[in-house]
Amino acid sequence: MTLEGKQLIGAQAVSADGAVIQAVNPATNERLDPGYSAGGKAEVERACELAWAAFDTYRETGLEARATFLETIADEIEAIGEPLIERAVAESGLPQARLQGERGRTCGQLRLFANVVRAGEWLDVRIDPALPDRQPMPRVDLRQRHVALGPVAVFGASNFPLAFSVAGGDTASALAAGCPVVVKAHSAHPGTSELVGRAIQRAVQKCELPEGVFSLLYGSGREVGQGLVKDSRIKAVGFTGSRSGGTALMAAAQARPEPIPVYAEMSSINPVFLLPEALKSRAAALGEAFVGSLTMGAGQFCTNPGLVIAEKSEGLDAFVAAAGEAVKGAAAQTMLTPGIHDAYSKGVDSLVASDKAREVARGPAGNGPNACQAGLFVASAEDFLTDEALQAEVFGATSLVVECADQDEVKRVAEHLEGQLTATLQMDDADAETARGLLPILERRAGRVMANGWPTGVEVCHAMVHGGPYPATSDSRTTSVGSAAIHRFLRPVCYQNLPEALLPEALKDGNPAGVSRLVDGKREA
Amino acid sequence: MTLEGKQLIGAQAVSADGAVIQAVNPATNERLDPGYSAGGKAEVERACELAWAAFDTYRETGLEARATFLETIADEIEAIGEPLIERAVAESGLPQARLQGERGRTCGQLRLFANVVRAGEWLDVRIDPALPDRQPMPRVDLRQRHVALGPVAVFGASNFPLAFSVAGGDTASALAAGCPVVVKAHSAHPGTSELVGRAIQRAVQKCELPEGVFSLLYGSGREVGQGLVKDSRIKAVGFTGSRSGGTALMAAAQARPEPIPVYAEMSSINPVFLLPEALKSRAAALGEAFVGSLTMGAGQFCTNPGLVIAEKSEGLDAFVAAAGEAVKGAAAQTMLTPGIHDAYSKGVDSLVASDKAREVARGPAGNGPNACQAGLFVASAEDFLTDEALQAEVFGATSLVVECADQDEVKRVAEHLEGQLTATLQMDDADAETARGLLPILERRAGRVMANGWPTGVEVCHAMVHGGPYPATSDSRTTSVGSAAIHRFLRPVCYQNLPEALLPEALKDGNPAGVSRLVDGKREA
Repeated sequence: MTLEGKQLIGAQAVSADGAVIQAVNPATNERLDPGYSAGGKAEVERACELAWAAFDTYRETGLEARATFLETIADEIEAIGEPLIERAVAESGLPQARLQGERGRTCGQLRLFANVVRAGEWLDVRIDPALPDRQPMPRVDLRQRHVALGPVAVFGASNFPLAFSVAGGDTASALAAGCPVVVKAHSAHPGTSELVGRAIQRAVQKCELPEGVFSLLYGSGREVGQGLVKDSRIKAVGFTGSRSGGTALMAAAQARPEPIPVYAEMSSINPVFLLPEALKSRAAALGEAFVGSLTMGAGQFCTNPGLVIAEKSEGLDAFVAAAGEAVKGAAAQTMLTPGIHDAYSKGVDSLVASDKAREVARGPAGNGPNACQAGLFVASAEDFLTDEALQAEVFGATSLVVECADQDEVKRVAEHLEGQLTATLQMDDADAETARGLLPILERRAGRVMANGWPTGVEVCHAMVHGGPYPATSDSRTTSVGSAAIHRFLRPVCYQNLPEALLPEALKDGNPAGVSRLVDGKREA
Repeated sequence: MTLEGKQLIGAQAVSADGAVIQAVNPATNERLDPGYSAGGKAEVERACELAWAAFDTYRETGLEARATFLETIADEIEAIGEPLIERAVAESGLPQARLQGERGRTCGQLRLFANVVRAGEWLDVRIDPALPDRQPMPRVDLRQRHVALGPVAVFGASNFPLAFSVAGGDTASALAAGCPVVVKAHSAHPGTSELVGRAIQRAVQKCELPEGVFSLLYGSGREVGQGLVKDSRIKAVGFTGSRSGGTALMAAAQARPEPIPVYAEMSSINPVFLLPEALKSRAAALGEAFVGSLTMGAGQFCTNPGLVIAEKSEGLDAFVAAAGEAVKGAAAQTMLTPGIHDAYSKGVDSLVASDKAREVARGPAGNGPNACQAGLFVASAEDFLTDEALQAEVFGATSLVVECADQDEVKRVAEHLEGQLTATLQMDDADAETARGLLPILERRAGRVMANGWPTGVEVCHAMVHGGPYPATSDSRTTSVGSAAIHRFLRPVCYQNLPEALLPEALKDGNPAGVSRLVDGKREA
């Protein structure tokens, strides 16, 4: 398992000649070998050429063959064993147990999509049989299925070096849909990326698929990233990262001669609403549990609770006091990269400098480099409503409590929020009517609304929505986690009066593929 | 039923003070009363304000109440009776029988969506029940449904003054999804628009819905059109029209602080592939039937067959000869507007002037103004592949036959095409293998692939796809005709661990709404 520092293009590992990308261990600031020479136009061209050549074959693989491929990727990732975890720990500063869990999530996700592929719901088969005797006009035979959009460019995220990276949710759902994938590796974890990329290469080979089904490129956002998004053979983009990065990809995709969809998951501060009765009955416990969610993974989750909203009350004071104590006791954790640590420090500094945010507590400073010192601040609703800077995401373990005069002001703050991945209600039974008043606002503002939990922790299942209105994501109609993520990479095609012999398997008479179908508008399971 | 020439904003009919819009009878070039004073900022503001105020209430109407509303609109349109047809004939130049059929289609479409709403498939309910004992971590209760995006701006199209206009497919599917609608009337048929708009107003009132569920504005594309698309309360756009119009709306929607989806159906030349055996066995019959499709409605359909592709052969010569004769016998029909007639004439003139297109036949010139003189031209595949101008849509009854040296060249021409709404195969049984070779290309290029029919005639049903890759539409993942059109105006929301009392009806235990649900990934009908 020696890392070679090469681009993985189709079945090959090739050397590029751009500037060297080298991982840094954020716990020590040491550089990690090998270096990865950045790719450029030639590598993008070759990967897209192979992906396009693979597309028509790959998108017509049978349900079982495609499911087996996804399972084989999971098997190959597991077969890497401890070297994968060790390298990911070194490149990310994340704890071993967390990365072991993340590996389980990544492989579980691939296996979930294997089952999704087999079940065939994603084909959304619809059949309206011919009605030759209909008056005044006969109806022809019409059948619909969904087909893959085309090769997809996936951008690995830094904060989940396994679950949102080379073989993460975007890759798994795109491959499940029948799309070849070209990944741009995140430069923070190139070695982890190579290990996983080689696992996918082996799975492609074992399953005897066209080599272009998968490539992994290393390089800059400008050369490789923009190059992929602008290539006419790329038909969709999956991205998890910053708002500036996501909007740049959206602009590039829209400026193409043929615009393409970009699924960018970008920015969310995940408001938590503490309702009055819950604050009366359990403010201190809420404060402690909140800080558990806030500081998990050094706050480096898209769903990190960066905002707390409640009416001013004794309960809220007790919550803030308990949360402040918990923040003071929250050990500093190493952040993912020096760059993320810098951005976090600047975000906290601007809260410290703001005359509108009051510092409640700071966590202990760490010993090593890039340590995340937790923070808790308070602001008035009036200030929050007038100062856009207070709504900016501080990526890391810092949160802002917004004190409101009454529930009307709570609603005004809720209406003022940008689109979010999540919105959380902490509520007792007696808060039900208050919650009912907030729900329509939260449904308009967020992809997931929860009660009495915390937003960190995103279950990979069928009902999950990891999405939300802009700028949480670029496309509120979708989710990037869970089985529904497959729909991002599909489009419907209708077949009119096609001879049985030419119909795709899923649309043939007698339902040989055994998939759920909507016949004349009625569901046949 | 006196037309008043006013903007319909919520429950009111109000006078605006912009430039006067007046319909022209294209058969006579006479102006039709009344004039409609164009609206501007104030009218856009008021319509959006009311739509936003109506949104939370309207999107939570029960399935039965919303279905009844759609049926009431259909009833009210039918209740207008002959005055609607007469006005539409005068404003469009289309024959009475065609408009009677179109009214049936429009009302049938509303009733189809009523049934779609009742069936509840569109909610895409997914339930993953809590697993408190799961190891290593319990699973919380997760439930997903789809909710309406928000108020939708709909742009009426000129070529279907009923079925793609004020109460057309975009309006019907947006209302079905739970979205209030603000229509910008097409200036070619303002009186028809007023009659239908007032029918919707009456339905809103009869069903006791908030008045902002529907408004109808008259004005310019710049003031009212762009004004609607830029308004922060508008959350999606439906449009059928020209490529320049559609791309302008796409650009405006992307430039908003919160970008929104635009569903623009724009440009398609609907290639017809004549396969060798079909040409051998029935060339003359194909030529005649083709011209029937080509000249239907003066060729003013999005699905008009503007391109024929085949191998050079005796059969193709016979097809061209028969089609040419049919074109010569095709009576000129009045086009929708003087502007469309001008654009058509220019398009035909540029084919006449091209040294790469050979004129086969022209139809008889008409007597009245704005008559569409049909046309048939032939070009070589070599020229077609190198001259982009030959691929431009000529909106009207003119088509180009592309002669190919062999099936490989047929495939190259197919690959060269832009995105299309439809692709048609004329084939005999012995053409099956040839068709099989073309299918993957056509699936990538078009939303609907048909055999042995003609692209004009779009069934309103569950399996229909009236969509396709750019520039046929702005979003290949959708259809603007058929029940699946509802999905354009929806987004998923996940409810985590919400108390039963707060759950939406469709997600409650015991399925009181009686809708199809995916429980733990398994379909429960």
